[in-house]
Amino acid sequence: MDQTAFLIGFSIMSVASLAIYATGRKTQPSGHHTLLHASVPFIAATAYLAMAFGLGTLVNPDGSATYLARYVDWSVTTPILLSGLVLLAFHEQGKTGEIGGYLTSIIVLDVLMIVTGLISSLAAPSLAKWIWYGWSCVAFLGVLYLLWGPLRALARSRGEALGAAYGKNLVFLTVIWFLYPIVFLVGPEGMKLITDPASVWAFLIMDVIAKVVYAFYAAANVDAALSQQTSHQTDQRDYRS
Amino acid sequence: MDQTAFLIGFSIMSVASLAIYATGRKTQPSGHHTLLHASVPFIAATAYLAMAFGLGTLVNPDGSATYLARYVDWSVTTPILLSGLVLLAFHEQGKTGEIGGYLTSIIVLDVLMIVTGLISSLAAPSLAKWIWYGWSCVAFLGVLYLLWGPLRALARSRGEALGAAYGKNLVFLTVIWFLYPIVFLVGPEGMKLITDPASVWAFLIMDVIAKVVYAFYAAANVDAALSQQTSHQTDQRDYRS
Amino acid sequence: MDQTAFLIGFSIMSVASLAIYATGRKTQPSGHHTLLHASVPFIAATAYLAMAFGLGTLVNPDGSATYLARYVDWSVTTPILLSGLVLLAFHEQGKTGEIGGYLTSIIVLDVLMIVTGLISSLAAPSLAKWIWYGWSCVAFLGVLYLLWGPLRALARSRGEALGAAYGKNLVFLTVIWFLYPIVFLVGPEGMKLITDPASVWAFLIMDVIAKVVYAFYAAANVDAALSQQTSHQTDQRDYRS
Repeated sequence: MDQTAFLIGFSIMSVASLAIYATGRKTQPSGHHTLLHASVPFIAATAYLAMAFGLGTLVNPDGSATYLARYVDWSVTTPILLSGLVLLAFHEQGKTGEIGGYLTSIIVLDVLMIVTGLISSLAAPSLAKWIWYGWSCVAFLGVLYLLWGPLRALARSRGEALGAAYGKNLVFLTVIWFLYPIVFLVGPEGMKLITDPASVWAFLIMDVIAKVVYAFYAAANVDAALSQQTSHQTDQRDYRS
Repeated sequence: MDQTAFLIGFSIMSVASLAIYATGRKTQPSGHHTLLHASVPFIAATAYLAMAFGLGTLVNPDGSATYLARYVDWSVTTPILLSGLVLLAFHEQGKTGEIGGYLTSIIVLDVLMIVTGLISSLAAPSLAKWIWYGWSCVAFLGVLYLLWGPLRALARSRGEALGAAYGKNLVFLTVIWFLYPIVFLVGPEGMKLITDPASVWAFLIMDVIAKVVYAFYAAANVDAALSQQTSHQTDQRDYRS
Repeated sequence: MDQTAFLIGFSIMSVASLAIYATGRKTQPSGHHTLLHASVPFIAATAYLAMAFGLGTLVNPDGSATYLARYVDWSVTTPILLSGLVLLAFHEQGKTGEIGGYLTSIIVLDVLMIVTGLISSLAAPSLAKWIWYGWSCVAFLGVLYLLWGPLRALARSRGEALGAAYGKNLVFLTVIWFLYPIVFLVGPEGMKLITDPASVWAFLIMDVIAKVVYAFYAAANVDAALSQQTSHQTDQRDYRS
């Protein structure tokens, strides 16, 4: 059962990586979004391959499985997806230090969210398990605060079109990312209300939406916004670092 | 005993993370320092939570403990603290490649310092243990060379006020960081001259100074320097990347 | 036997790190290449020290050894070497986001190449072993595509001298990097056609060429290109980030 899901995951993700690169803009000002979004499913494909071979799959005392490959995948792909939003908010502006400050803080929160989620998933049912789950949610709230607060304000200050594109991408990402802690909570990692295969298929569908559908949706929004503001763009474009 | 210290560490660090963000400047040219310094104690809080739960705590054959969470914390927080100094030295100037070269080399030395320190701490008393300790010190000297040599020269070339702020932060960081290899040397990781609880409390106090007190001190120095040179700043501020 | 090779590796790499820094340009526009290239052998020296002490050395059921320290070394040093090429292609131009997109995607492919290579090396002879080897080669092809396709085009658009320097460094790196999967394939990790000591010495020689000889060769090419285009350089040099 799971095996089928993992091989489907590997196939979709590896084809999607190529498709996102092949169909995306290669030149500035949006070429780097294509590169970032094509990298994400390549990582996911590798993680699904590992899960298909049972690599990094821990069987817990109660018979449920923890897939370490997922957490390694997420700890690299979610920072890349967040970087895309941060770079969109700063679109072609912002000094290295300024962008670096936002990237560092949002990636720190995001990776701690994933690491503490893994700790929670590995813990036997206990107070500690739920403290780790809670701390993971605190980190998630920190990520959302930065995305919806200061970064959204920055994106809006870049003009109406870019602000709108940032807003659309942000809503999509927020909705799909909110499903992860919920599926985690009801799945084998948490309260075990759904079975292991149900959880595997749910994560597969969510991964495809968050990594592949999102990539095409985000690119369409960014490209539409950029074509709207081309005249403005031409002015300020001198291609200096 | 240790448990109390770890819970105090968790409490101080999580409150400090919020306090540093809440009281710090949010806008450029110093907003990214607030984000960097608020990230550091959030990571430390997570590490103290892990130590409180005994997660990643190895008990050595002689009964002393090695806290892996500490080394994971340090290998992320010290690069962030160093990045703050590097970005201050380049204040709003320097191309991506130039800043990236310094960040890469200083973080490589810093992380190798911590990893080889961990290897030394895990080794039984032997020649190898002291060779690793020595190599860790070599890497530390490399970090200090970059901070006190080329980066200090860069900071000074950014004007007197910024050079002075860089210098103050550098002295503070150098003094407190020098205590770590000393406490390591006399503690359970090294020559075992002090007990495990004494070492835990010493690291707690040093962590609070290096991560929390330093954050407020560094922000005050940077803000003072920036207000001194505001007129100069206004000239060169065109907010391009 | 191996011990001798590892100690020679440690000695060459640590001296080379100092020598590359001491003889390299310290100022812009090429100072960051010196810092990047001096970092690489420092990491390799640490890895050879670990191998000399048998740290991270796994003995497989058939008596051959897998050196984890190599893979840790490669997963940090190869991204740094690739960063040098990416930054050369963008030489002093390119916005943070643009450079970040190329760095992220090429480092993702590169690290996955190394991780899947490690998985392949640890797998018993089986279909899975060769699937991982194949996936590692796919990632390597991705790295080569980015280096020979879009990045070479970017480098050429920076002027003839810089384009030629990029091309020379790229040929050198491509040739030496191609030897790694071949030695891996015929060595103990793969088809076991050569012995463990032969593989250790082959990797030592290749490491010295790829990390030390390359550093001097690359620096000479970059410096020659920069002196050729100094007049052009003076124009566009305003030292903004």
